[in-house]
Amino acid sequence: LNTWQIEETTFDPKSLHVGETIYTIGNGYFGTRGSFEEGYPGSTEATLLWGVFDSVEISKEELANVPDWLTVRLTVNGEHVRLDRGTILEFRRTLDVQRALLQREVLWRGENGLTLRLRSERFASLVNEHCGALRYSLTVEQDLPEAVEIEFWATFNQAVGNNNLLHWEMVDQGKEEASFWLHSQTRHSFVQLVQSMRLNTTTEGFEQEVLDLAGGIRLYGRLQVGETLTVDKLVSMYTSLDDGEPQANALKDLGLERSYYTLLGQHEQAWQAFWQQADILLEGDDKSQQAIRYNLYQLRCNASAHNSRASIAAKGLTGFGYDGHVFYDTEIFMFPFFLYIQPLIARNLLLYRYRLLDGARKNAQLSGHKGAQYPWESASDGQETTPTIVPQQNDGKPGLVLNGLLEVHISADIAFAVWNYWQVTGDDAFMRDSGAEMLLSTALYWSSRATYNSEQKRYEIQDVIGPDEWHIHVNNSVYTNAMARWNLQTALSILDWLQNDAPARREELVARLDLNESTLQHWQEISSHMLILQDQKTSLFEQFEGFFKLEPFDQGPYAGRYSSYQALLGVDPLQTHQIVKQADVLLLLTLLKEQFDLETKSANWQYYYPITDHDYGSSLSSALHAILACELSLCDVAYDLFSEGVLVDLENRDADSARGIHLGSCGAAWQAVVFGFAGLRFTPSGYTTHPCWPKDWKRLAFNVQHKGQNVHVDLRREDT
Amino acid sequence: LNTWQIEETTFDPKSLHVGETIYTIGNGYFGTRGSFEEGYPGSTEATLLWGVFDSVEISKEELANVPDWLTVRLTVNGEHVRLDRGTILEFRRTLDVQRALLQREVLWRGENGLTLRLRSERFASLVNEHCGALRYSLTVEQDLPEAVEIEFWATFNQAVGNNNLLHWEMVDQGKEEASFWLHSQTRHSFVQLVQSMRLNTTTEGFEQEVLDLAGGIRLYGRLQVGETLTVDKLVSMYTSLDDGEPQANALKDLGLERSYYTLLGQHEQAWQAFWQQADILLEGDDKSQQAIRYNLYQLRCNASAHNSRASIAAKGLTGFGYDGHVFYDTEIFMFPFFLYIQPLIARNLLLYRYRLLDGARKNAQLSGHKGAQYPWESASDGQETTPTIVPQQNDGKPGLVLNGLLEVHISADIAFAVWNYWQVTGDDAFMRDSGAEMLLSTALYWSSRATYNSEQKRYEIQDVIGPDEWHIHVNNSVYTNAMARWNLQTALSILDWLQNDAPARREELVARLDLNESTLQHWQEISSHMLILQDQKTSLFEQFEGFFKLEPFDQGPYAGRYSSYQALLGVDPLQTHQIVKQADVLLLLTLLKEQFDLETKSANWQYYYPITDHDYGSSLSSALHAILACELSLCDVAYDLFSEGVLVDLENRDADSARGIHLGSCGAAWQAVVFGFAGLRFTPSGYTTHPCWPKDWKRLAFNVQHKGQNVHVDLRREDT
Repeated sequence: LNTWQIEETTFDPKSLHVGETIYTIGNGYFGTRGSFEEGYPGSTEATLLWGVFDSVEISKEELANVPDWLTVRLTVNGEHVRLDRGTILEFRRTLDVQRALLQREVLWRGENGLTLRLRSERFASLVNEHCGALRYSLTVEQDLPEAVEIEFWATFNQAVGNNNLLHWEMVDQGKEEASFWLHSQTRHSFVQLVQSMRLNTTTEGFEQEVLDLAGGIRLYGRLQVGETLTVDKLVSMYTSLDDGEPQANALKDLGLERSYYTLLGQHEQAWQAFWQQADILLEGDDKSQQAIRYNLYQLRCNASAHNSRASIAAKGLTGFGYDGHVFYDTEIFMFPFFLYIQPLIARNLLLYRYRLLDGARKNAQLSGHKGAQYPWESASDGQETTPTIVPQQNDGKPGLVLNGLLEVHISADIAFAVWNYWQVTGDDAFMRDSGAEMLLSTALYWSSRATYNSEQKRYEIQDVIGPDEWHIHVNNSVYTNAMARWNLQTALSILDWLQNDAPARREELVARLDLNESTLQHWQEISSHMLILQDQKTSLFEQFEGFFKLEPFDQGPYAGRYSSYQALLGVDPLQTHQIVKQADVLLLLTLLKEQFDLETKSANWQYYYPITDHDYGSSLSSALHAILACELSLCDVAYDLFSEGVLVDLENRDADSARGIHLGSCGAAWQAVVFGFAGLRFTPSGYTTHPCWPKDWKRLAFNVQHKGQNVHVDLRREDT
Repeated sequence: LNTWQIEETTFDPKSLHVGETIYTIGNGYFGTRGSFEEGYPGSTEATLLWGVFDSVEISKEELANVPDWLTVRLTVNGEHVRLDRGTILEFRRTLDVQRALLQREVLWRGENGLTLRLRSERFASLVNEHCGALRYSLTVEQDLPEAVEIEFWATFNQAVGNNNLLHWEMVDQGKEEASFWLHSQTRHSFVQLVQSMRLNTTTEGFEQEVLDLAGGIRLYGRLQVGETLTVDKLVSMYTSLDDGEPQANALKDLGLERSYYTLLGQHEQAWQAFWQQADILLEGDDKSQQAIRYNLYQLRCNASAHNSRASIAAKGLTGFGYDGHVFYDTEIFMFPFFLYIQPLIARNLLLYRYRLLDGARKNAQLSGHKGAQYPWESASDGQETTPTIVPQQNDGKPGLVLNGLLEVHISADIAFAVWNYWQVTGDDAFMRDSGAEMLLSTALYWSSRATYNSEQKRYEIQDVIGPDEWHIHVNNSVYTNAMARWNLQTALSILDWLQNDAPARREELVARLDLNESTLQHWQEISSHMLILQDQKTSLFEQFEGFFKLEPFDQGPYAGRYSSYQALLGVDPLQTHQIVKQADVLLLLTLLKEQFDLETKSANWQYYYPITDHDYGSSLSSALHAILACELSLCDVAYDLFSEGVLVDLENRDADSARGIHLGSCGAAWQAVVFGFAGLRFTPSGYTTHPCWPKDWKRLAFNVQHKGQNVHVDLRREDT
């Protein structure tokens, strides 16, 4: 097994869409699904650019699939070359994650009997994030008396949508020297996009013509048997969200000195640098080695190193799932990878949230609260974009979605990422200029959201949805209350830090956010008296008020199911039973790990682990659960959980990979290895590891960045 | 004023979409909006083919806008010729409704200073419904030292949707001799569509190239100053819903003997024949003369003479409003025009409903009833396609739409059209083979829908929406109950007729629909005791139970408004007030006119006319109200109402013509002239007229068909 490559040697049209997701390439500026250049019936080709949203009715806005830059159409002796016609004699598709290069080789026989070898390779340049490059080649494999006629057409296919939804309108198109350019705009948000292309071929005897009215470049000529035509399609894309004039930028990028090889060489170097920092060496289990590398590849493909307005959607730029919206998946599940591997990207992810503070303030106002309430689903402006009505999973009828109103823990989750960033990087400037304001604004939200129960003399948070989304309108979610308390305490400590390190900034923030002494006392008061439901005898946390009184849920009858309990039973039955969608109390024990002893962790694990829907509840659970399992020395359980997470897309385990990569799971997989199996912890005097070895694992080695230092961890299993 | 032509001499981009609707051409097989061949930013170009539906989430299915056959792109000396660039020096757009030909002439100066005269004309052949033809010509008007280079590109633009919704996927494209063809399929319903095109030019020195991979035909050459390039783009479209193989059909249609002039000549002849039968001569009021001709033109453009599976959607094939769904607009408002002018088309409209009886039976079953319940909104299979949730007009928030469940009067409306068709045509075969089954099946529905109130000893129909859609969940709607009673009585009389004229068919239907003696007695019983709310003293009908007890509605404060009361106030306030959206009780008095005396009509007119939202309630009201106004000799009121209706689109009076033509209003305008102003009534011994002359009208002449005879009515005003 080549642990740097994902490969398939047959093509199954039934898994067309899953394959398109798996073989996605990207660089954070854009992602392009692994559809075929020649097109294929029913394909969901897509190139998504971060930040390029257009409106949709049901959920405000979504990332708008741009005209397809891959499109190539060709005929050989008048016959269309396309994989749904003729016969595929050989097929091989390889994603080399080390070089971030997708290759396909097909031996194809047309209906007229002509046999061709078709090769293509493509990449999304990590050096120039605006550039995509495609090399397409065709060899006549057959013995024929005379040359064959080839016609080749390269275009930007505008007849694409987000599934059915068409977001772009053509503004203009034209040519400049050997380049063709297409200018489009989104239909509602009026983002301007210019895509340009150039074709290069070294094959002799082929003529090229830019047909700007027809919208592309035509290449034609004759090929002798045994000869190969190789065409490079170089593409550049700029939008009005970028600096400068899109058209000038897009044309400049295709200067003649740019060749496919130059671009590829730079690209490979950049990925080499990435892997030097990011790779995890895992000896003894090639399948996991391959899978973790694929997960890290996807994380990198979907994060932008150059754009401090960029975040990562739940499915990144890999598919239409969740409309390109950003959830807590980013801060809680993906963020730690970037924090320890590419802190500049981690910083960008936080700056995205910082820039949207105004939107979060509007959300708080709309719900009658102070401070900043981050949206459960976030897109371009920080306002809530969660759809309010969607077809229900069990019967397809319209159902209300309340997460946008009630799943408020995300504000504390973002605050938590801000704090962690500061702890791990020591980036005081960020904390002073951006982080502190986020911590204080979210604390202000919590202080107005918590209500005082004068009878019980305690603070409560009513009517929320916790991470376990199957229980709606719950009171005093342990996760939510504990994270809110943490948020308030941390905000107070940041004010102390500012007092010493940046008193002017403190004054400015205190004045602007109206944080007078009584406000701060109130924060202290809430922190001290926040209700955290825990049975002192058993150490068990009660997920929310009344959870322990719900009916037990018998999972027995559902063995062998292929979908989540919610999809099977609908919303109501789950609401009244002790069945948990995903890590909730256990997530809290993982995030705030220093606050809880091993006994508490063990007791809660034993209670909550069995009543969680590990198979189909949420892809966020599996790998994350592994961290706690390792801490409790349940190494085989941890391994199974990790496998479930790290293979969720490669093996389409949730049967929904067609909608895009589960990037939260990719991030959780990295955390499982580093914090779970390696047991890495930083202490004031350095770091410690506490390995938990799955059966076959022999060695685990990786790097992390900590306070500007590179830390190389290399663990080898001692024979027992 | 040329009363055969609609013309504008300036182009205002602000009314781009209204213009596209007004200048629609069509032949019932397809309709093509009046967008520009060169494209225009924000345009909603559309070609809709009757019956070609594709699914959408919110309302099941909609007519799917096909790739645009008009598209032409051209450059002159490298500069794109398009009306949103350069300067429009002269502009004239003329729709000649007599020839059904749309012409545009523009004098245009490019940004490079070159002045061109651009002419285009197009039509949708009434002889070969699959053919569209476009003639585009360009003259270099300027004095220049040398010839200019012209490049011309004709294609089918696939990047079009129903607004944002993309319905088609390309299957294949190719060339055959001088023709290019494109094969597409709908993404969900898998309707196959083949569009073919050919370019003809008689201008010398121009080369033509079919570029099948690029998807079109290219023409290029040089033009001397003063010379004209003329290109004919001939197009043919066939789908898998048509007989035969679409691709073979589409290519055969473009045989070389077909020239633009041959096609146009045949087309003009066919329209001449139509006008000989359909024209209304109205002397003394050119504006109304022009407008009524335009209304009749639109009716004809949207009805298919050749397809007995075709009906007419609320907006026909002219725009995206109401998703291409069929309402009672067709049977109550449009149908009489066809019945008296082109009875074969009227028959097709009824056969559409006949073929969908199974769907109507399923609807009845779903709501727990017997017989056939026709859907409020109908598309391909007769099942309910009314959206269940739409954004509310006043605040944009999602609102429930109950019309699909409650607006049940449509089943009686269709039965009414069936009966009328038989009365006017005497087509016994139709009644025997199709009509009777519809009448009996809808009667069966009503008999199971009506409930017996044993206390009051009467039959009631609970929980409906009447034609006045602003009152929801009402009981004993007078319109609904009276039409249901009529439906039951008529069904009984049809059984008697069958007994004599087609006893075998009667037996078959009685057996199949399970109409035993007790069923028929039950029908009789319901008819005799159906509750029809009427105050015996005042003769006033109460629109529904409790209507008279609702609060009066003061329209005073809303003078000068630009939208309906529902759009202004939302659903709830109207529900509790006496304000009526559209003709309801008055519609009943118009449809069953023989059942009511003039006094009753007058009393109800005086009550309901003032409390109806004539300005923005429904475009169905105005012209129809005119009939009753004429009967009551309120000729000036009638004229104002008629004007409102007949000009609703030409003057965009409801501010929503961008969404398509108000075809119900077109049909109502014809009825207003014939049954209102002329006062035509058929009696057993012939016909009578009872003219009501608006101020300027001098003469009114038209034809109608009655029992296979042509009746020519020619009324001249006697000087008073």
